[in-house]
Amino acid sequence: MTFNDRIAELRDRVRQQRPLIHHITNFVVMNDTANVTLHIGGLPVMAHDREEVAEMVAAAGALVLNVGTLSPDWIEAMIIAGKRANELGIPIVLDPVGAGATSLRTSSNRRLLETLQVAVIRGNSGEIGALAGMGGVVKGVEAVVEADDPLAAAQVLARQYHTVVAVTGRRDLVTDGSRVLAVDNGHEWLKTLTGTGCSATTVIAAFTAVERDYLFAAAAGLACFGLAAELAAPQARGPASFKVAFYDAIYHLAADQIRAGARVVDLSTEQSKAVAQS
Amino acid sequence: MTFNDRIAELRDRVRQQRPLIHHITNFVVMNDTANVTLHIGGLPVMAHDREEVAEMVAAAGALVLNVGTLSPDWIEAMIIAGKRANELGIPIVLDPVGAGATSLRTSSNRRLLETLQVAVIRGNSGEIGALAGMGGVVKGVEAVVEADDPLAAAQVLARQYHTVVAVTGRRDLVTDGSRVLAVDNGHEWLKTLTGTGCSATTVIAAFTAVERDYLFAAAAGLACFGLAAELAAPQARGPASFKVAFYDAIYHLAADQIRAGARVVDLSTEQSKAVAQS
Amino acid sequence: MTFNDRIAELRDRVRQQRPLIHHITNFVVMNDTANVTLHIGGLPVMAHDREEVAEMVAAAGALVLNVGTLSPDWIEAMIIAGKRANELGIPIVLDPVGAGATSLRTSSNRRLLETLQVAVIRGNSGEIGALAGMGGVVKGVEAVVEADDPLAAAQVLARQYHTVVAVTGRRDLVTDGSRVLAVDNGHEWLKTLTGTGCSATTVIAAFTAVERDYLFAAAAGLACFGLAAELAAPQARGPASFKVAFYDAIYHLAADQIRAGARVVDLSTEQSKAVAQS
Repeated sequence: MTFNDRIAELRDRVRQQRPLIHHITNFVVMNDTANVTLHIGGLPVMAHDREEVAEMVAAAGALVLNVGTLSPDWIEAMIIAGKRANELGIPIVLDPVGAGATSLRTSSNRRLLETLQVAVIRGNSGEIGALAGMGGVVKGVEAVVEADDPLAAAQVLARQYHTVVAVTGRRDLVTDGSRVLAVDNGHEWLKTLTGTGCSATTVIAAFTAVERDYLFAAAAGLACFGLAAELAAPQARGPASFKVAFYDAIYHLAADQIRAGARVVDLSTEQSKAVAQS
Repeated sequence: MTFNDRIAELRDRVRQQRPLIHHITNFVVMNDTANVTLHIGGLPVMAHDREEVAEMVAAAGALVLNVGTLSPDWIEAMIIAGKRANELGIPIVLDPVGAGATSLRTSSNRRLLETLQVAVIRGNSGEIGALAGMGGVVKGVEAVVEADDPLAAAQVLARQYHTVVAVTGRRDLVTDGSRVLAVDNGHEWLKTLTGTGCSATTVIAAFTAVERDYLFAAAAGLACFGLAAELAAPQARGPASFKVAFYDAIYHLAADQIRAGARVVDLSTEQSKAVAQS
Repeated sequence: MTFNDRIAELRDRVRQQRPLIHHITNFVVMNDTANVTLHIGGLPVMAHDREEVAEMVAAAGALVLNVGTLSPDWIEAMIIAGKRANELGIPIVLDPVGAGATSLRTSSNRRLLETLQVAVIRGNSGEIGALAGMGGVVKGVEAVVEADDPLAAAQVLARQYHTVVAVTGRRDLVTDGSRVLAVDNGHEWLKTLTGTGCSATTVIAAFTAVERDYLFAAAAGLACFGLAAELAAPQARGPASFKVAFYDAIYHLAADQIRAGARVVDLSTEQSKAVAQS
C-alpha cells in the first residue's frame, strides 16, 4: 500500500465512521467549518457553554479549539472541554489564530498548550513562529512576516508540547519534532478567502478522529484539502466561485483522485525521496 | 381552492406583507437564516440582548428561538422575548437544536416549552423523540438513531404543550396532536449542508407570521422549502453549488411551481387521500 | 486626473497597502465582511474582547464598529478600541445597524458618536433619520419609512459630529455637512441579500485606511461597491448566484472598469455637473 493509498483509505474511513467533530471556534468561520466537516464526511457540532462542553465532547471523535474571536469565558470552556477530551483520549486540534498579534492571543494559546495535551497544532508561519518564540509577525490573523525558519519553529514547538505541528503555507510542513512530512498540495485561491486555515484545521481534526498516527493524519488531511482546491481551481472565476467549487470538490474527493494527486514528501529520510512513489 | 392553491397563496402573502422575523438563534446559521428570510419574502433581524429583545419582538411577525449554540444568558433573552411575544399574540417557532445531546440542551428546551406558549416546534426525529421522552439518539445536532415512532413522539409533544410539532426527515410529519399532515417534498442534498433544519424553521416562522392556522402554515412552509430544494437539485454539482441554486429557488418560488409540485398528504383522514388532489 | 481616475487609483492603493481592517461587528455578517475585506485588497480581523481590542486596533488601518447584534459588553469594547484608534489617528467607520428600531440601538449609537471621533457613518435612510432625529422608521434593520429628507438628515448628523455621513439607497448620498457627493452605482440584487450595507461599510473602511479625504474615500468605496454589483448582475439567476458573482467582481474590479463605470456626481456645485466628466 503506497502512501497515497493510505491517504485515500483514511479519507474513506472518515466517510464511513462519520465522527462528530466538536468545535469551540470563532464566529467568522462557524458556518464554513460546519459545512466542511459535513463535506469531508463527519458530523459538526458547535457548543461553547461551560455547562455543556464536557458532556458534548464525550460523544466526539475530535475536538477543535480555535481562538479566532476569543474571550476569556470561551477559553475557560475550551479548557473544560479539553480536559475531558484528554481523559477520554479524544484528540484535540488547536488553531492558534492570531497568536503573536496580541498578548491575549499569545498567552491564551500558551495556556491551552500548557494545560492540555494537544494532538495537532495547525497554524501559519507567523503564528507558529510566535508560539515558538522564533520570529514571524502576525498582523490581525495573517503572517505578514514569516518565521525565520518555519520548520525549526515547528520542531521546537512540537518537542516542547509533545505534539504534532502543521505549518501551512505554500508548502505545508508537518512534524512531531523528529519526522517531517511536507505537503505540496494547495492553490493560490485559498489565500483569497477567510477561514481557509480554520477549515484545514477542521479536516485535520476529522482525520485524527479516525487515525491515531496524528502526524500522518495531519499530513493526509492537508493533502486532501489542498488537492480539493487544485481540482476546484479550473472552475473558479474569482474567490467566491472558487469557494463553491472547492466545497463541492471536498465533498466528492475520491480515492482515485487522491491516489493520483496527493503530493506528500517525507523530509525525514536523508534522500528526501517522495514517499508517494515508495 | 385546492390545498396547493392555498399554499401558493400563503407564500405570496409572505412576499406582500414582508413580516419581520426576529431570530434569537445560533451563530452557525445566522447568515443563512437571514438570507432565507429575505428570499422567502420576510425581513430578518437578529437581536439577543435582554435589554432590547422585548422591544424588538414587538415589531415582529414571528419569533424564532433556536438553541443551536446556547448559553444561559441567551436562554434568558429568549424567555424575555418569548413572554412579550405571547402577550402580543406573536407566534413563536422553536428549533430545539441538539435536544437530547446534552442535559443543558434538553433542560433549556423544556424550560422554554414550559414557560412560553410556542406555536410550532420544528426538530429532527432524535430531538423530538428526546423532548417527548420517547427514544432517539442525538449526536451533536444530528439524529443518529431515530425516535422509535416519530409521529407518536410528535403527537405526545404537541398535546403536552398545546402546540404544533413538525418532525423533519425523509417525510416530514406535522401534527397538532390530532390532525397529521405529511410533507413529501425535499431532497437528499439538504443533508449535506449545515443549518438546513434551521432554515426550514425560519420559513415556517415566516408562514406563521401571516397565517394563524399554524398546522397548515408549518406544512406549507416545509412543502415550499422542500420543493425549492427539488427544483434546485438538477443544477447541483455538489453541496455548495446546490446551496446557491437552492437559495435562488427559494427566492423565485412561484405560485405555479407550488401548485404543480407541493406534495402534502393529510394522514388524519382514514382514507389518507392526498389533500393535494381534493 | 479625472474623478474616476482618482477612484481607480484609490482602489489600487488598497490592494498595494493591504490595510488591516479591524472589525467589531455583528455575528450575521462576520464571514461576509471578512471576505469582502480580502477581495477589495485588505486584511480582515475580527476581535471583540476588551482585553485585546486596544492592542489589535493599533496595527489596523481602519476600525469598523457595527452594532448589528449589539450587547453592552461589545459596546464597551468598541469604546476601548475607538479611543485607542482616535489616539493613533486611525479612522473609525460606524455602521449604526438598526438605529431607531430599539432604544438600546439608538442610545448605543449616540454614545459611540459622543465618545469617539468617527470618520464616516454609513447607514440606510431610516437609521440616519433616526440618529438625526429627523424621521424614518426602522423595522428590524430595514428602513421601512425613509427619512423625510435623507440628505438634510445626513447633513445635520455630519455637522453635529464633525464627520462624514453616507446614506445608502437607490442613490447614495455622502456629505461632510457642506459638500455632497451622490453615487449612482448599485443594483437591485443588493437588497435581496443580508449584510450588503455592512459590506459597503467595510469597503468604505478599507478606502479610509489609505485616504485621508474621508468624503472622497466614502464615495469612492460606494462607487466601487455598487459598480461591482452592476458588473455581476448579468450572471445572477437569483440572490445567491448574484452574491457569488458580486464577490468575484469585487475581487477583480479593475482600473479600467472604474474609469468607465463609476458614477459619482458632485451636488455641491450649483450646476450639479457630473464630476466624472470634469
